[in-house]
Amino acid sequence: MNIYDSVIIGGGPAGLSAGIYVARTGLQAILLEKSILGGQAITTDTIENYPGFPEPVSGFEVISLMEKQVRRHNLPIEQKGVKSVEYQKESDSYTLTLLNGEILSARTLIIATGACPIKLDVPGEKKFAGRGVSYCATCDGPLFREKEIMVVGGGNSALEETMFLSRFAKKVTIIHRRDALRGDKILQERVFQNPKIDFLWNSIVKEIKGNTQVREIIIYNKKEDSTSVHKADGLFVYIGTKPNTDWLNNMVQADKQGFLITDEKLSTSLPGLFAAGDCRQKALRQIVTAASDGALAGMMVYHYLQEKKFDNSHLGS
Amino acid sequence: MNIYDSVIIGGGPAGLSAGIYVARTGLQAILLEKSILGGQAITTDTIENYPGFPEPVSGFEVISLMEKQVRRHNLPIEQKGVKSVEYQKESDSYTLTLLNGEILSARTLIIATGACPIKLDVPGEKKFAGRGVSYCATCDGPLFREKEIMVVGGGNSALEETMFLSRFAKKVTIIHRRDALRGDKILQERVFQNPKIDFLWNSIVKEIKGNTQVREIIIYNKKEDSTSVHKADGLFVYIGTKPNTDWLNNMVQADKQGFLITDEKLSTSLPGLFAAGDCRQKALRQIVTAASDGALAGMMVYHYLQEKKFDNSHLGS
Repeated sequence: MNIYDSVIIGGGPAGLSAGIYVARTGLQAILLEKSILGGQAITTDTIENYPGFPEPVSGFEVISLMEKQVRRHNLPIEQKGVKSVEYQKESDSYTLTLLNGEILSARTLIIATGACPIKLDVPGEKKFAGRGVSYCATCDGPLFREKEIMVVGGGNSALEETMFLSRFAKKVTIIHRRDALRGDKILQERVFQNPKIDFLWNSIVKEIKGNTQVREIIIYNKKEDSTSVHKADGLFVYIGTKPNTDWLNNMVQADKQGFLITDEKLSTSLPGLFAAGDCRQKALRQIVTAASDGALAGMMVYHYLQEKKFDNSHLGS
Repeated sequence: MNIYDSVIIGGGPAGLSAGIYVARTGLQAILLEKSILGGQAITTDTIENYPGFPEPVSGFEVISLMEKQVRRHNLPIEQKGVKSVEYQKESDSYTLTLLNGEILSARTLIIATGACPIKLDVPGEKKFAGRGVSYCATCDGPLFREKEIMVVGGGNSALEETMFLSRFAKKVTIIHRRDALRGDKILQERVFQNPKIDFLWNSIVKEIKGNTQVREIIIYNKKEDSTSVHKADGLFVYIGTKPNTDWLNNMVQADKQGFLITDEKLSTSLPGLFAAGDCRQKALRQIVTAASDGALAGMMVYHYLQEKKFDNSHLGS
């Protein structure tokens, strides 16, 4: 059976960038993506902060360009999902079982399976995603200058992003299902002190309505058992982010949310297994930080194999 | 005197990306670049590995796009050099003295002054830079498939990059001024074992010749006191890299070569002073890794000031 030098799992910005860099080293590699390429980026209507694109550009366009660049470097991209991975200690390699039953072998893996914001799962959420419904204030906040926004959540992320949104928005209303916030005291003080920020307690979103953009949020108050309609130009959802790492079955060290723990060279707790992009524990999740991780993981795979070649005779010369 | 929330020093990919991200937070900031924008990237003729640009693109073009993006976000860019920096402990701020005598104050700094490959300083080097003369195998190696290349140097970087180049080139000749290599034993073994790699000992480059591209290298052998002419399509120079950090006068913790030491959030040993891009100690120096650093530093400046606002009353509300 053919053994790949590297298998890249995930076709978002991290995986595609890893593909470019790995391909350029001349290693024999493949990129696997279980659904469509692009990860979270592809769902983004307007990207203004990926360096090198001065005019607003869609996630679809940026991803198409990256895909073209991977193909130009002759790295095969296949639409296949990975079911499970096993580390073979004797051969210092990985065996992948794909969803279609196929078995692959690889000396190294780059895990770039991304993360997903946890969804509200209410009518209108999917329809208005990127059209007023957002999961990233860093990305979309500046699009809401002088607008009225609602934020769902009560934890640290929700409060931090609410503060950030208040720099642009005319008014930000936090919708929280309890009667008290969960986030750190210092963050709570900040949002309470901020005159632009308002609260809807004991409340949950029932539906998101609009025409081409979000216009109204239907909110149910659990305590009063009443439903009300609120005008809003945007709804930011911060009820959690989940890394797409369940399929690894805890074989790699991760934090309690499941984000993979790496060192600064993107090595994980298993030899030859690197993590790149949103699926790893990191300070900022953006297209450019994911692309940077991919580049680094690609080069680290190359250096790792260079070392191995002289340490382990089984890899041949 | 006006106090900036942040001053970004350096206008390469790291500084420009920091500019985009800082501007989007709404902080009052400015970007200073002492000469032309672009850093090392602007001297690069052909970039194939910056994700999102599938067709080969010049450094000039990528930098022009990033500059346009910074200006679109209304961040002022000024062509001014910084002579010295002082940290004012009482006010927890920085005072910058510019080369033109101007004085600026800032709550935070992003140092993005880059690094420079040490040059050979021989005739033809400048003329053929980007036309066969290169300082980055990761960037330019794949352009030299089946070509004959020479590498100057004998340390770890020279040997690692020679190994990398040997994946593409027909032949790679290491030109070294001594009669033995300096790099690690394991790297030495690798280059000696590699049939594509040849050596010119006790030798120094005297001149680089060509037409539109490098064609010939004039080499002087110190031991034999003789000069010879060698055909080559490319010359890679690896005699060291110097971070542009001398002007900081050791006020920030750095390694012995002068690269600034940061944590994973790009904080340095001084509060509110962040480092981004090639000037910091890091595993891979590429446009995309610099741009990623800039984005992260920009967001960390924002979070740092958010914290401060509630810890130090002098910053106002």
